[in-house]
Amino acid sequence: MEKKITIIGAGLVGSLLAIYLAKRGFKVSVYERRPDMRKSTISAGRSINLALSDRGWRGLDGVGISDEVRKIGIAMKGREIHNLDGKIAFQPYGTHGQANYSVSRGGLNCLLMDLAEKHGAQLFFNERCTHIDLTSATATLENNETKKTTQESADRIFGTDGAFSAARLALQIGTDRFSYSQSYLDHGYKELTIPPAKGGEFALDHHNLHIWPRGQFMLIALPNLDRSFTCTLFFPFEGENSFAALDTKEKMLAFFNKMFADAVPLMPTLVEDYFRAPPASLATIRCFPWSYKDKLLLMGDAAHGIVPFFGQGMNCGFEDCIVLEELMNKHREDWNAVFRAFENSRKPDGDAIAELATENYIEMRDKVGDARFLLQKKIEARFSEKHPEKWTPLYVMVTYRTDLRYSEAQERGQRQEAIMQQIMAMPGIEQKWDSDEVENAILKLLKA
Amino acid sequence: MEKKITIIGAGLVGSLLAIYLAKRGFKVSVYERRPDMRKSTISAGRSINLALSDRGWRGLDGVGISDEVRKIGIAMKGREIHNLDGKIAFQPYGTHGQANYSVSRGGLNCLLMDLAEKHGAQLFFNERCTHIDLTSATATLENNETKKTTQESADRIFGTDGAFSAARLALQIGTDRFSYSQSYLDHGYKELTIPPAKGGEFALDHHNLHIWPRGQFMLIALPNLDRSFTCTLFFPFEGENSFAALDTKEKMLAFFNKMFADAVPLMPTLVEDYFRAPPASLATIRCFPWSYKDKLLLMGDAAHGIVPFFGQGMNCGFEDCIVLEELMNKHREDWNAVFRAFENSRKPDGDAIAELATENYIEMRDKVGDARFLLQKKIEARFSEKHPEKWTPLYVMVTYRTDLRYSEAQERGQRQEAIMQQIMAMPGIEQKWDSDEVENAILKLLKA
Repeated sequence: MEKKITIIGAGLVGSLLAIYLAKRGFKVSVYERRPDMRKSTISAGRSINLALSDRGWRGLDGVGISDEVRKIGIAMKGREIHNLDGKIAFQPYGTHGQANYSVSRGGLNCLLMDLAEKHGAQLFFNERCTHIDLTSATATLENNETKKTTQESADRIFGTDGAFSAARLALQIGTDRFSYSQSYLDHGYKELTIPPAKGGEFALDHHNLHIWPRGQFMLIALPNLDRSFTCTLFFPFEGENSFAALDTKEKMLAFFNKMFADAVPLMPTLVEDYFRAPPASLATIRCFPWSYKDKLLLMGDAAHGIVPFFGQGMNCGFEDCIVLEELMNKHREDWNAVFRAFENSRKPDGDAIAELATENYIEMRDKVGDARFLLQKKIEARFSEKHPEKWTPLYVMVTYRTDLRYSEAQERGQRQEAIMQQIMAMPGIEQKWDSDEVENAILKLLKA
Repeated sequence: MEKKITIIGAGLVGSLLAIYLAKRGFKVSVYERRPDMRKSTISAGRSINLALSDRGWRGLDGVGISDEVRKIGIAMKGREIHNLDGKIAFQPYGTHGQANYSVSRGGLNCLLMDLAEKHGAQLFFNERCTHIDLTSATATLENNETKKTTQESADRIFGTDGAFSAARLALQIGTDRFSYSQSYLDHGYKELTIPPAKGGEFALDHHNLHIWPRGQFMLIALPNLDRSFTCTLFFPFEGENSFAALDTKEKMLAFFNKMFADAVPLMPTLVEDYFRAPPASLATIRCFPWSYKDKLLLMGDAAHGIVPFFGQGMNCGFEDCIVLEELMNKHREDWNAVFRAFENSRKPDGDAIAELATENYIEMRDKVGDARFLLQKKIEARFSEKHPEKWTPLYVMVTYRTDLRYSEAQERGQRQEAIMQQIMAMPGIEQKWDSDEVENAILKLLKA
């Protein structure tokens, strides 16, 4: 008999998961709170573009759709750093020319939904999940337009409905000993636009991610297929330099002209963009368990919502799908085993990437503008190139080493950082950074 | 015009708060999910008896009802420790004969509800809060018996509905940037009974709290007015010695006979008590903010749910009422000021007692059976008696020093503990613990 699966949420992870499950022959129904973004010009929710990297590609490879997705992506080879004094610096992402791909959240989501339907999944829109009966795997759904309520029973439910998951709320309210935390940064964000330049070309080099690091805050820009850039200002909610303080056109423009002088001329709609909406918030979500018996499993942001500073939210969610696929291959129809193994193996990785993502905000907004930090990166890159089996920089492990779990990458990264602290403390390191002495010192510390 | 106040939850804190607010002339309506415990023999929810101490008395004093409550309390002067070898040790609570009062949760709650009604508050039972509209301070209530739904509007709402607060859920679901965490201990508890002895007398000394400390777990007993004791077994959920492991009458009795040999003969209904219900869980709740504008304020466990090991849950909630009363006296009808001041001043104290309560589990289940720990307590007590202005033991500060905030008590306690670590490391401390040398060493460390 064909087994029924309900998926709550047709975002990036829910749509990809629907493809995986439909391909295995399940009868998959996906319920999405928002209207069908393929038919209306609604916002796709949060950020407009995303950086797709190797863990994400691996998730897409698993259902053979990488090539199709690559067509709508723009390769970014590194960070182009816009310093306050107008100088530009470049920092490659990988030690071997690796790239992250800027993709449109909406474009990718539409493609995944089309493929899910093509593989037989049914998608329902404007259906808000208001309740889940855990023991019977029955979801109550309220249609946003008709206000009609329906109950959908299935063999099991997957909750891929994001950081403010209704499926997770069912675990919080309906089960005992459910650990849960939602915590917010004191910083929020607003999205701004750099349109194509006069000749129709990109206004900045589109093969980089652009960063204006300013210590306590930053502006970044990612390229879009239409040759525009979407910029994001990450900025404190309150305080001297904050969203609360820049409350008039004059104050905002004076601040931008001082802090982002080379970007302002590229942003003709800056004032409208800035004042369009209040700043969005940045949450980290942690919970456990991620499941209820063999009836409900949370995946993606619903299980492990993270801040965007390592560009890993979507990539982590897509990797979830591959991990689940491997466990379904191993345990077959023993869903209790699949769900337990999934949450136990994946929880440390969700925790690791949550911490790494929070730490990377400091790196992006502050350290990338710092000469000593860039020197440290150069030393690491040089050593890694000479001894690739001994050293992979943390960024590369997290972003491109899909053979390493996030938790392993974090652990190795901590060991490496401790070594680099000692290397950077060597007298005259600025002069001798590429010497044999430094190389040998690292080798010795690695053996200790 | 008479201002309307809604209180969600007629537990200990909600009922006391109703008295405070009704005395100030507000029209107070209290909605309680459970039936009226004065009319039915339902369980009062969690634990059967509680230790009332000075912060709690201060909250009761504020509305002049301490004398009435004292009639239903039993003074406990210290911990009577039942060691595994059958030996008994005694540890006084205070340095000056202070006591904690064992009171029945149900009895105290009924008394407070009677008084709330006497002062004009209206109490409604079987009314479960299913939704709160924050901007209009309107609560939606569903009657558990009639299933009828009503909407009650007020000028503001107080949420005193405990660790699993529906009022708090309104903040979690309905506001941005609400920090929230619920975390559970790996240990749970079951309540057992020691009935009166054959002659109708208490089976143990009823002027003490009894502890059977066993390292990773413990049994405690508090006296009741009917000359019984309520015992609580705090025990791991899983593992070698755990609720999961003791799953038959034989295993359970063998374990109790080995671990609590002197208690078993006093517990004729042990088997029934133990297998009556699954173990209850122990949660710590942290959140912020505790309010929405001047419309909603959380108090008691709804704002700061803690584990029971410092006996401070109710006391902290009653102290909340006094803190609110002082702020209402100061800011009068400026409720925005009252709510902001309440949450900002009280949050560090809620966090402090949450940490202290968690730490005290280790002290109760493990350290009180340790000779060196008891020696340290003796040294502290002796020094505190000679220099009361310089030293108050942590337990005394938390429990009896109502002039100190929990956060101050915690901070001083940490400084004192660091000093005691050095004192306990003095060679021959066991012999010279009551010498001038040790006293002078403490005095010197205090000045450092």
